[in-house]
Amino acid sequence: MTHNARQRFRASPKLKLRDKDADDATFSSRAANPKLGKSRGKTLDLERTAALIDRIAALQDKLYAQHKQKVLLVLQGSDTAGKDGTVRALFSRISPMGLRAVAFKGPTDNELAHDYLWRVHQHVPVNGEIAIFNRSHYEDVLITRVQGWIDDDECKRRYAQIRDFERMLAETGTVIIKVFLHISREEQRERLQERLDDPDKQWKFNPEDIKQREKWDDYQRAYEKAIRETDAPHAPWYVVPANSKTHRNLVIASLLLETLEGMDLQYPPPHPDLSSFTVV
Amino acid sequence: MTHNARQRFRASPKLKLRDKDADDATFSSRAANPKLGKSRGKTLDLERTAALIDRIAALQDKLYAQHKQKVLLVLQGSDTAGKDGTVRALFSRISPMGLRAVAFKGPTDNELAHDYLWRVHQHVPVNGEIAIFNRSHYEDVLITRVQGWIDDDECKRRYAQIRDFERMLAETGTVIIKVFLHISREEQRERLQERLDDPDKQWKFNPEDIKQREKWDDYQRAYEKAIRETDAPHAPWYVVPANSKTHRNLVIASLLLETLEGMDLQYPPPHPDLSSFTVV
Repeated sequence: MTHNARQRFRASPKLKLRDKDADDATFSSRAANPKLGKSRGKTLDLERTAALIDRIAALQDKLYAQHKQKVLLVLQGSDTAGKDGTVRALFSRISPMGLRAVAFKGPTDNELAHDYLWRVHQHVPVNGEIAIFNRSHYEDVLITRVQGWIDDDECKRRYAQIRDFERMLAETGTVIIKVFLHISREEQRERLQERLDDPDKQWKFNPEDIKQREKWDDYQRAYEKAIRETDAPHAPWYVVPANSKTHRNLVIASLLLETLEGMDLQYPPPHPDLSSFTVV
Repeated sequence: MTHNARQRFRASPKLKLRDKDADDATFSSRAANPKLGKSRGKTLDLERTAALIDRIAALQDKLYAQHKQKVLLVLQGSDTAGKDGTVRALFSRISPMGLRAVAFKGPTDNELAHDYLWRVHQHVPVNGEIAIFNRSHYEDVLITRVQGWIDDDECKRRYAQIRDFERMLAETGTVIIKVFLHISREEQRERLQERLDDPDKQWKFNPEDIKQREKWDDYQRAYEKAIRETDAPHAPWYVVPANSKTHRNLVIASLLLETLEGMDLQYPPPHPDLSSFTVV
């Protein structure tokens, strides 16, 4: 694969989610070689993703040793879009010493008593870390807007505040990647239905998901708007087709690897006087 | 392997580290079958550890879903004892969603301006999490005591405070496991020498390690004392022979798995009214 995920999946300023194919499989082995069988293609994709993860792990080791830069990966997407699955698939093979995975749930009373960036700020990565936000401050311009808890004016102010916040993070040494997991309405229906049908998944079913689903179009508009308003060269949004989990993981691993490769990660130099020491 | 790591490696109230063999390989495949070649034995040990890690991952998934209990694994040991290596080997294959790895370094000014348990308390696991402390509040009765920053009376007070703190954590739902990685003085010499000789490890070399090594015996006594004074049924210490990395990982994986198996981890029950929902 040539390295072009960042170019291929970067959100445009005129993003329209309805024009984005959630089944897009551009990066798949079958797209490159249509003669491949479905199962063989999937196996190849899994192998390629595993190879990317190995390279990510090697670079994360340098990031941790160098202790000078940090990476923030924001994952957003509707219920069942695969945020948890992405974290599990891509990051459960990487040393946890330099990794911080944070899932933001509904805010607590104490969190609500602060500004909405307060709880997020506490979990930004430190030098040497990759932090993954499973949901994030973007919820504060998504569910809040769709439910009418904030109006358009407040929402605009928040876009600007988020832009400022992320620029500050970038200027102080954080490399930011933002990923929207794009699934289709039909795909969500199937995944929710699975939670009702599959005994192993039933514990995940939450009636609230069905209520939120009724507002699918409102959510799509809110995502579209938030992405357009907060995309920036130092805090880029990527719209990743996510109906296929295998292809989704391949794309996100590519995005992360390309980003790390652009960071000039090196092990720190040894002590200048190594030869003067002996261990007795 | 029969499940008895917790019994086999539990610290005794009369622990003497000098009587503990850091090369002990009781759990190895070669101990069970001395006819095995060295390399074959190691391969088998690695395979067994991998199988244990798979079972740990499955139980961690339930821990996370159940969201009612939490696990704290404390790793202590001298420089080069393998704390980082243990985290990397055992936890880089487990979903980071329910995992928190925290490395405690020398305290900051702000941390020093608080009591010594303050910064530790902030990182204790939440429901559903396994937290790994790479060093911990035990540094505050180890390096501090060996360097003479605190005297015997203060050290005794701290043992009691640590006992109280850990009992509170246990009583409020945290399952605690404390592991001392036991290497020999000679093994440390070899590992430090490697940092001087191996270009890939030279960046890890810190002259301070050589200074600390001069106080090896003082440290051994301080560990011994701290372990004896703070071992408890709800916060047990395990002394793990750690000259062999493969065997060390096998033992710690066994300790963790046995602990998780004792916790009655279950997926939560589904919504009582599943059949009343349809996804449109």
